[in-house]
Amino acid sequence: MESLRVALAERSYPINIGAGLIDRADLYPLRGTAAIVTNDVVAPLYLARVRKAVEAAGARVVDVTVPDGEQAKGFETLNRVFDRLLTSRLGRDAVIVALGGGVVGDLAGFAAATYQRGIDFIQVPTTLLAQVDSSVGGKTAINHPLGKNMIGAFHQPRAVISDVQTLDTLPDRELRAGLAEVIKHGVALDAAFVEWLERNMDKLLARDRDALIYAVRRSCELKAAIVAADERESSVRAYLNYGHTFGHAIEAATGFGPWLHGEAVASGMVIAAELSVRAQLLKPADAARIRALVARAGLPVRPPALAADRWHELMSHDKKAAAGRTRFILLEALGRARQMPVEPALVEAAIGAAAQ
Amino acid sequence: MESLRVALAERSYPINIGAGLIDRADLYPLRGTAAIVTNDVVAPLYLARVRKAVEAAGARVVDVTVPDGEQAKGFETLNRVFDRLLTSRLGRDAVIVALGGGVVGDLAGFAAATYQRGIDFIQVPTTLLAQVDSSVGGKTAINHPLGKNMIGAFHQPRAVISDVQTLDTLPDRELRAGLAEVIKHGVALDAAFVEWLERNMDKLLARDRDALIYAVRRSCELKAAIVAADERESSVRAYLNYGHTFGHAIEAATGFGPWLHGEAVASGMVIAAELSVRAQLLKPADAARIRALVARAGLPVRPPALAADRWHELMSHDKKAAAGRTRFILLEALGRARQMPVEPALVEAAIGAAAQ
Repeated sequence: MESLRVALAERSYPINIGAGLIDRADLYPLRGTAAIVTNDVVAPLYLARVRKAVEAAGARVVDVTVPDGEQAKGFETLNRVFDRLLTSRLGRDAVIVALGGGVVGDLAGFAAATYQRGIDFIQVPTTLLAQVDSSVGGKTAINHPLGKNMIGAFHQPRAVISDVQTLDTLPDRELRAGLAEVIKHGVALDAAFVEWLERNMDKLLARDRDALIYAVRRSCELKAAIVAADERESSVRAYLNYGHTFGHAIEAATGFGPWLHGEAVASGMVIAAELSVRAQLLKPADAARIRALVARAGLPVRPPALAADRWHELMSHDKKAAAGRTRFILLEALGRARQMPVEPALVEAAIGAAAQ
Repeated sequence: MESLRVALAERSYPINIGAGLIDRADLYPLRGTAAIVTNDVVAPLYLARVRKAVEAAGARVVDVTVPDGEQAKGFETLNRVFDRLLTSRLGRDAVIVALGGGVVGDLAGFAAATYQRGIDFIQVPTTLLAQVDSSVGGKTAINHPLGKNMIGAFHQPRAVISDVQTLDTLPDRELRAGLAEVIKHGVALDAAFVEWLERNMDKLLARDRDALIYAVRRSCELKAAIVAADERESSVRAYLNYGHTFGHAIEAATGFGPWLHGEAVASGMVIAAELSVRAQLLKPADAARIRALVARAGLPVRPPALAADRWHELMSHDKKAAAGRTRFILLEALGRARQMPVEPALVEAAIGAAAQ
């Protein structure tokens, strides 16, 4: 097992990464009552094992199973979770265990952030995307019809248990979607990690356990360092949104579903690389490396066909848009992100280039 | 104008108390966009003045008017606020101005806590209850059918503007309900303030401006000191809940409405004083002084008639109940609260004594 610590003073917490960890009662910091929140795909696979471990850790367990998929990340499902917590009479000492992917983590984390003004929660991410991304940094949220993640809170978990064995049951497409965020960590923050990914992409796609553990660990290290420096995203944390302004627009345009989040981010990263070239920051050869790496991961490099107006409209809803002018996360070089406003004409040219 | 500061490191904020303050643009720390959240009783009285001051402070203004009353403090109204913020395209730099009483402050504060994972807000409390209680400490929440304030967050305002002139339009009954929390601050935290209240109750009921400013100021000072020591209510902040476990039960039993919050707390304080006597902590003469002070403020001293089972059931839903056993805030003396578990039989006896 590998462990790293997200350093946030009294909100610091460990991320444990390894194989077979979900069964280890000693990794769940809880007692009293635990509410396991999971979805109807993950529940048949892992709920019984997690329940057993949590009970062995000394807690009474209630569980809430929500539907699979992004549609579940709304007020209706959130209220189902609250109903269950309240009818089970859970008090402030209860702990929520989020067992599942990013949707479950965001939803259960937001429930924990707001139930009785905040209770503890433990993340047990079962997708690669959740292991490398949402498990670090405490962002929780639900969607609103007018935008993704529009309602949320910063709420750090007490612990993260990332069991790469649970990735054995992950569909290929979702594994690849998770690799998009892994690639993002390299591209935005660490050129050496990009090189490692170029050498090890085949192993990752073949679910080589050691390669997966390294990719999860390095992603979490990179993200944890950023979060420790800027928990509330007032500066460098925005670098983690590399590719996301375009990615969110793709998800919104296609109705949150046809494109997985990681697929939309993959395409968004290619656009952002093209934009970085057009803003005269990035060498064209590096943009080509990004595009090639995304393609090798089996991820889409081309965005869906949308009118220029539609792109701008969708991006103006993005949270990163302050006072109407969209600031983009661009690359000065592989592994070196920066944030700056860009003229709309360059954005359209970058989208056009990515679509080639 | 009197000013005091709630000391919470980087979340510290000023509370300004005086007459005519809502018109002073310099007291609103904002620019960019402001969303004024108010209700349909307060809007005709003060919205235009606050809007003018906020615009003079340099902000574009949108406003959201919600229905008056506790019923508005739920998911439906919260979503109306979010809809307005999103359709107005408010970004993370927007500021919410909560203009109204406790319901508006709690609702708008929770909207600010969770909109795009948290934006700034300014409290402009227009009831005595809100000026002496909810304006200090950052508790925000909405109600759930199964319990009051069950969903919420700790989110400190950037500033509080307490204009005692706005109390001129407050109905007598609401003025008295606010006095319940003023009395609570004395009874739980400061015997000298109890004496001041015994000497000045007539002036307060006559809305003497200087007396009101002193009562608001001293309440805020007492509460601010507690909040600075224990922001998240892990220890002494619980003392501020004196009378509230019983008060919440009364509100829940009567359906949130017939008893104002302050009236329920007033009755709850009398029960808690009787319970403190029965737990052999408080002198009977001091319990009698509390009862007399509550009565002089024109507040109810007797609880509604409920079966013992119903009391226990309602109190077990209280957030302060950990693992099924209810801990009560009791008094060792006037101005000296403590927290301890109590046998159910004593609770029933105290309720019976209060009902005499």
